[in-house]
This record gives sequence, structure tokens and C-alpha cells, in this order.
Amino acid sequence: MSIDAARRPRKFAVALVHHPVVDRGGDVVTSAVTNIDVHDLARSSRTYGAEAFFITTPIEAQRQLVSAILGHWAHGSSGERIPSRREALAHASVVPSIDDAVASLGGRDGVEIWCTAAKPTGERCVLLPSYADARAKARSDDARTLLIVFGTSWGLAPALVDACDARLPPIYGAGGPGGYNHLSVRAACAITLDRVFGIA
Amino acid sequence: MSIDAARRPRKFAVALVHHPVVDRGGDVVTSAVTNIDVHDLARSSRTYGAEAFFITTPIEAQRQLVSAILGHWAHGSSGERIPSRREALAHASVVPSIDDAVASLGGRDGVEIWCTAAKPTGERCVLLPSYADARAKARSDDARTLLIVFGTSWGLAPALVDACDARLPPIYGAGGPGGYNHLSVRAACAITLDRVFGIA
Repeated sequence: MSIDAARRPRKFAVALVHHPVVDRGGDVVTSAVTNIDVHDLARSSRTYGAEAFFITTPIEAQRQLVSAILGHWAHGSSGERIPSRREALAHASVVPSIDDAVASLGGRDGVEIWCTAAKPTGERCVLLPSYADARAKARSDDARTLLIVFGTSWGLAPALVDACDARLPPIYGAGGPGGYNHLSVRAACAITLDRVFGIA
Repeated sequence: MSIDAARRPRKFAVALVHHPVVDRGGDVVTSAVTNIDVHDLARSSRTYGAEAFFITTPIEAQRQLVSAILGHWAHGSSGERIPSRREALAHASVVPSIDDAVASLGGRDGVEIWCTAAKPTGERCVLLPSYADARAKARSDDARTLLIVFGTSWGLAPALVDACDARLPPIYGAGGPGGYNHLSVRAACAITLDRVFGIA
């Protein structure tokens, strides 16, 4: 743990993707934005020190809805009532795609993208060997901003996984690989950020 | 990590408490059951191998509502559609209080209760020194079932904290103690179970 304490993590951001994701049958779909995901991932991202939290959806009406919610917390009575929630959501923004999130972080050359998946997926994306390795890489002298990408529905589409630089290992529970590991994206994001950026 | 791999954790259960909890101002209140909490904590509990997940609320109408939801997943079309969700919720039950959860686990003498809190609270409850210590204790030869208790709203009331055997350390983020750590109970439960029972 001494290496962690001695070195601050690299800058990082979090993205929650609603397209392209797969449904129960493996078809590529666009999922609906869930309000509680926005709150929970914003709070977890803020707690672990993310620079930004992006909600990505290609559906303009959904982006308008999320923007309205964020505005309500930034400027409305809710933010006055619960300042800690306002602070978390101040780091959140909604964009059409991961490409837009990358652009707002300075462009593809300045960003290293790690995706997450509960099951093996994609073919060309490098699988990081362990969370210990991910922790070390997140504290290396690589100047690129890390972007950690989570999928909704039944997970990120393989094409998006293959467009990422690396994939974090699945989070296995008591049953290990092959055992039950049906975590919500809210739980998976929290555990992932704690494993990579947390100070236990 | 070898000690973890060599030894299976003790039996454990999870409880989500809606009374007595405190509100924003520190007053003791009864919070409303949130449907997504039931799902998320059931899924996280099942993933990490909990024997049972208890939702506690003294309000009978809320218990009836939760029972109806659980029944819908156990016997209705939702469980057919998403078997993994049915499997998670099969471990969930709703009871009036922590005492009822303890009774159903065999009684107070056979249960060690650990509570969780984002901030220091209670006066008589022992604070575990670290999550490494909690991991070791969760793998000791103590025959008692561990019951890990989470509070809703602004957290467990001090009187309930003091009735527990020990308190897990707060989960701090990038800012450390005093920094921003406003996680949802869904995120906090996931991180806690991963830290104590997870195999990274």
C-alpha cells in the first residue's frame, strides 16, 4: 500500500454509456437514462476524486431531461437543501457519445480509455491482469487522463469494448469466475472506483 | 491475500435499516423503503455470498409493499424474465426490526453485529481499526454469524450503533477523512462487502 500513499493517482473521469449497449439477448440497443444512476455515479465519482462524470446518450430528449435535472441541482432548491448532492452533480454532464466525452477531456491522444464488463467481451481490447495492476497503472507517470467507462443494460457492446485501450477484470463475488456476479451498475462503479482509486 | 484464499469467510447476512435512522438535522426518524435499494443490496449481498438480506421497517404498510415486490419476483413474470434477479431477491426478506433479523439468524448469542457509518457516531460501539482487520475477523474461527447493518437517510441512529458489537471504519474517498464521502447506501454497501468479503 505504500506505493499508493506515496503517489497520487492520475487524473481520471467516469462515463456511463447508454449506447451502444447490449440487451438481454445480446442485441445492440440504446437504454433509457435512469435518474438514480446519475446521482449514484456522480456521488461515487466525486468521492473518489474524478475530474468529471459523463452521461452519454444519443437521444436528444434524454439529454435535455438529464440537463434539466442537473440544472435543478445546480441552481434550484434541491441544491440548497442538500449541498453535498449539488457538489457531486456539478461534476456531471450529458453528451451524445464517448467521443464527445473524450473530446472534452482534450482529445483521444490525451486520454486512456478503460472499460468495464461483468463477463468476457470484445476481442481486441487488452484485459488488465488484476486490480493491483490497474492500481499501479492509475498511479504511473502516464500523462493521459484515464476515462473509466461503464455500460448500462446488459453491458457495453463489443464494438465499444474493442475501441477502448484496456478492460478492467470482471468483479467476481464469493463464487469466483462462473459464480453469481449480477451487480447493479451503481454497485459495480462504486467497487471499481474503490479498487482502483480507494485508500483502504 | 493468501490468508483470504486459504480460509472461507464466516457466514454473514446484511440488513438495511429504515428505523431508527437520523435525518439531515440529526433527528431520529423512519425513512421510506426505496425499491432500488432492495434490488441493489439484494444483488450485492448475493454476489458476495450473504446467507440472507433483511430489509427492516416498523411500518406494516411498507413491509406489505416490499413483500409484494419480493413475491412478484419469486412467483411472477419478472422472475421468469430475469432469473438472476429472482435469485438475488430469494435471499431477501422484510422484518420489523434488527431484533427480528437477529432472531431469524438464531438469536443474539449466535450473531455478531457490525454497523457502518460515514461519520463517527455512537459512543460505546467499538470501532474496528481497519478493513484489513475486518477481513481477518470475518475469516476467524468465531462461530457467530456476522450481521452487517446499513442505515438509510442520514445514517443509523446513535442508539442503534451503540447496540452493535463493532463499527466498520468510514469509507473515505480521495480526500481522506474530512474529504467528500457522500456515497449512496447502494454504493457504500457494495464497497463494504467487497472490502470485507471480496476476492480482488
